[in-house]
Amino acid sequence: MNFALGIDVGGTKISYALIDNNGIIKDNVVKVLTPKTSNEIENILKDIILKFQDCIEFVAIATAGTVNNSNDKVIGSTANLPVGYKEINFTELSDKKVFVENDANCAAWAEYKIGASVNCKNSIMLTLGTGVGGGIIIDGKLLKGKSGGAGEMHFSMSRNKKRQCTCGAWDCFESYASGNGLKLTAIDIVGYENITTYDIIEGANNGDKNFKNAVEIWQNDIALGILGLANLFDPDCFVLSGSMGKFVDVGKIEKFVNSYVLTSPTKIYHAKAGNYSGMIGAVLLGNELI
Amino acid sequence: MNFALGIDVGGTKISYALIDNNGIIKDNVVKVLTPKTSNEIENILKDIILKFQDCIEFVAIATAGTVNNSNDKVIGSTANLPVGYKEINFTELSDKKVFVENDANCAAWAEYKIGASVNCKNSIMLTLGTGVGGGIIIDGKLLKGKSGGAGEMHFSMSRNKKRQCTCGAWDCFESYASGNGLKLTAIDIVGYENITTYDIIEGANNGDKNFKNAVEIWQNDIALGILGLANLFDPDCFVLSGSMGKFVDVGKIEKFVNSYVLTSPTKIYHAKAGNYSGMIGAVLLGNELI
Repeated sequence: MNFALGIDVGGTKISYALIDNNGIIKDNVVKVLTPKTSNEIENILKDIILKFQDCIEFVAIATAGTVNNSNDKVIGSTANLPVGYKEINFTELSDKKVFVENDANCAAWAEYKIGASVNCKNSIMLTLGTGVGGGIIIDGKLLKGKSGGAGEMHFSMSRNKKRQCTCGAWDCFESYASGNGLKLTAIDIVGYENITTYDIIEGANNGDKNFKNAVEIWQNDIALGILGLANLFDPDCFVLSGSMGKFVDVGKIEKFVNSYVLTSPTKIYHAKAGNYSGMIGAVLLGNELI
Repeated sequence: MNFALGIDVGGTKISYALIDNNGIIKDNVVKVLTPKTSNEIENILKDIILKFQDCIEFVAIATAGTVNNSNDKVIGSTANLPVGYKEINFTELSDKKVFVENDANCAAWAEYKIGASVNCKNSIMLTLGTGVGGGIIIDGKLLKGKSGGAGEMHFSMSRNKKRQCTCGAWDCFESYASGNGLKLTAIDIVGYENITTYDIIEGANNGDKNFKNAVEIWQNDIALGILGLANLFDPDCFVLSGSMGKFVDVGKIEKFVNSYVLTSPTKIYHAKAGNYSGMIGAVLLGNELI
């Protein structure tokens, strides 16, 4: 069996593991805190790779941020990572080949290869966490666009400038469908700010009317966004992942979307590839592209 | 020089012409009224094809409605065409090969091959007319999705159910960015219904405050929709066509979009492939796919 080293670089943690051709993790996943400077990140990546150098075919890195079309450089959207991260030349980290791709794209690929969207050549993964990430697969290929940044889930849900999004624009899908969006929706309803998404989900489960209402509006917003994406992409399915994904009633959303969709009925699934889908997807995608 | 017969089937007219490999129309474009029944449409198409049978390589039809992925059957969205149109088996219209594709997709392809988006392997065409049509090209291939219907410009612009769209859903991009959308926006402002898009554009050009305001809101809505598409697709460019496309200030929209886009700057162009871009695009696409 051949192995690659899968690494996931996030704003908080760097995780890594040996992963085989089938996307199976060997032994444990190791986690370290993401250092504060890009130099330190570069050095830690070199150290990690050096440890595994002799038993791997290549290195596959799933990273926060936009990755270019030659899969060797981060070119944008790295709010959680230090200035200078974009300067790292990933190919120089090792004598082995180093493959880099955006973490949400990698996770979408893992779902397509071993998770919820297996055999769905046209699929869209939405990672619902603090924000919303996205990975779009068209005809069995990852949608990257002209520079590599495609799949940003920042399309407007309102013409009235209600919520400014983290991206600077107003009322993006992310600012309603994310965990933070749910929080803002709940704050609008209850009139005070000191709530967590945990409070809201727990409260709704325990029958709190306001929190139930917030969760319903949040799901309606997710459904509205998915309907638009279904009309644009005509995908076989959507996969919902991320810390908030599991709280979505996929059956209800599927029913709503398919009652309005102009293209043809689609499916909505919960993610299945697990917490390490980023690094697993990086290895599986690297396997095909390098 | 080899010729194909290009045919455009719309709700009002059927147009046709001989078109060469380079997308150049030979002689004139002939137009006839679209008959009221699908049988009559089928017969008229057979008659037209029969006339040209001996001097063509294949038949290329740009049609209203969604076309399947094998380019031989209309499968949906044919509000302007008679019931039964979907039953026509286009391959049986002639001994020659018959290639069918959605008219907006064909027009997008014509712009990519000989019009405003030449060399833009990732491009999106928006046809702004009574409604809004769309054609999306990714990596030099038409986006069709799982069943052929991708590229429907029906994504929500509001969470408040302000305008019901022709598709049955609420507040789609089409219901704001189309000519009809402009009219509804103007009606909201002036408070009476008896206006045409011509009145609005003329009025705005002549300095009427209300109509200028309506046109500005309309352009802002178009800009907002394009920003979302730019974040999703990261395209090289957008092409605006259709009867309303020419009234859009593309420079202003490009500036807005690029000041917020998360991916990388894009371009906005007016269409250049002309009124017959549908049938021309059908021939150019058929050339590559059959």
